[in-house]
Amino acid sequence: MARGRFISLEGGEGTGKSTLAAGLEAVLVQRGIGVERTREPGGTPGAEEIRKLLVEGAAERWQPMSEALLLYAARHDHVERRIKPELAAGRWVISDRFFDSTTAYQGAAGGIDRSTLDKLRRLTLGNFTPDLTLVLDLDPEFGLQRAGSRGGSEQRFEGKGLAFHQRLRKGFLDIAAAEPDRCATIDARQPQDRVLAAALSQIEQRLGWP
Amino acid sequence: MARGRFISLEGGEGTGKSTLAAGLEAVLVQRGIGVERTREPGGTPGAEEIRKLLVEGAAERWQPMSEALLLYAARHDHVERRIKPELAAGRWVISDRFFDSTTAYQGAAGGIDRSTLDKLRRLTLGNFTPDLTLVLDLDPEFGLQRAGSRGGSEQRFEGKGLAFHQRLRKGFLDIAAAEPDRCATIDARQPQDRVLAAALSQIEQRLGWP
Ligand SMILES: Nc1ncnc2c1ncn2[C@@H]1O[C@H](COP(=O)(O)OP(=O)(O)OP(=O)(O)O)[C@@H](O)[C@H]1O
Ligand SMILES: Nc1ncnc2c1ncn2[C@@H]1O[C@H](COP(=O)(O)OP(=O)(O)OP(=O)(O)O)[C@@H](O)[C@H]1O
Ligand SMILES: [Mg+2]
Ligand SMILES: [Mg+2]
Repeated sequence: MARGRFISLEGGEGTGKSTLAAGLEAVLVQRGIGVERTREPGGTPGAEEIRKLLVEGAAERWQPMSEALLLYAARHDHVERRIKPELAAGRWVISDRFFDSTTAYQGAAGGIDRSTLDKLRRLTLGNFTPDLTLVLDLDPEFGLQRAGSRGGSEQRFEGKGLAFHQRLRKGFLDIAAAEPDRCATIDARQPQDRVLAAALSQIEQRLGWP
Repeated sequence: MARGRFISLEGGEGTGKSTLAAGLEAVLVQRGIGVERTREPGGTPGAEEIRKLLVEGAAERWQPMSEALLLYAARHDHVERRIKPELAAGRWVISDRFFDSTTAYQGAAGGIDRSTLDKLRRLTLGNFTPDLTLVLDLDPEFGLQRAGSRGGSEQRFEGKGLAFHQRLRKGFLDIAAAEPDRCATIDARQPQDRVLAAALSQIEQRLGWP
């Protein structure tokens, strides 16, 4: 049986990742592809418990390096216990955020240097990467407005101020520029159906349909 | 003001670390030394929350690498927010477990290779180490008996079987042998007052009294 494909969706708050994940899942299922939709931090019972420590509470609850270690602890569990087994079973995995979010949030925006985070990634995951990463790009003033209307208790990163979110946006764009084979940037100002169409076109060109 | 000294107490379950920590604190306080007694995993509010994820639940709840990452997340918070500030303020810190426990539990006993754990330690802590590490050595058959009488809900590692605890004991002895300048091994079969006297003698010889 052919291994499934692993697609990660990345971008700042309110850029439309969760909306796109749902849209992609619907189209892939219609094509007869077995799909596992998941998210980070989280995706397994253990990783969801770590998520609670990360997304709730005051903005200064954790220093960026403690945060990065918690994120990779959750990611290790998620990859070993869910993503790899699903891919091996031939299913496609769509993850709402993955390791680029750590590089952008704790690195570009949070101040940890890139090489430290790359070493942590290697220690935890070895060579494992998504087959395709779709980066949703949007001015954070629009993104935070969209995310604000979402509500809920998971507001820790939204409280960090606009300068943080500008560094974040640049962090994602720099990752996409540095790894063009793995990453495609999508203009997230477009209406939802256009964003979905752009994502499907990238999947078709880069991965092909089974 | 002179920087304080950092002493870590290490060893398997029921070897007498917590008993020794209390005994050392009492003697140091009598000598007029400001003492901060702490423990790992834990020691700060954030790290104590991570501790709960680690010590409760089924033995197979986490793979060793997820565990190691959680432990270093907690340790980063503990070192940056409590241990370093206390040492800078001239206080002595006594920690009931520190990074050698990760090397022994997740490495020697859990199967992660030493170099991976050393890299993780460097990424998280740089060159920061205890000034002195006292390794309490005891046959795990005695240690588990002693620990069993302690009770409580934190039984996750005690459920791992005798072979695990034999590897653990050897792990601690190997660390002490490899780093004789930092580590001293104490025979933990001795009565409590003899263990305390041995510890005080090591402190006097290696660190001196202020
Ligand atoms: N292309 C779009 N144009 C306009 N609004 C959108 C678009 N995509 C999503 N939205 C709306 O913006 C809000 C945020 O979208 P969504 O939750 O998908 O973003 P997200 O990137 O997952 O956010 P978060 O980072 O907070 O999880 C939702 O109300 C959603 O309906
Ligand atoms: N030297 C000793 N001789 C005999 N019993 C001891 C000695 N030291 C401690 N004990 C007893 O053994 C039990 C375990 O001791 P203690 O809690 O200090 O060990 P520990 O290393 O902290 O254990 P754990 O790893 O479970 O935290 C306690 O009941 C304690 O009173
Ligand atoms: Mg979302
Ligand atoms: Mg104890």
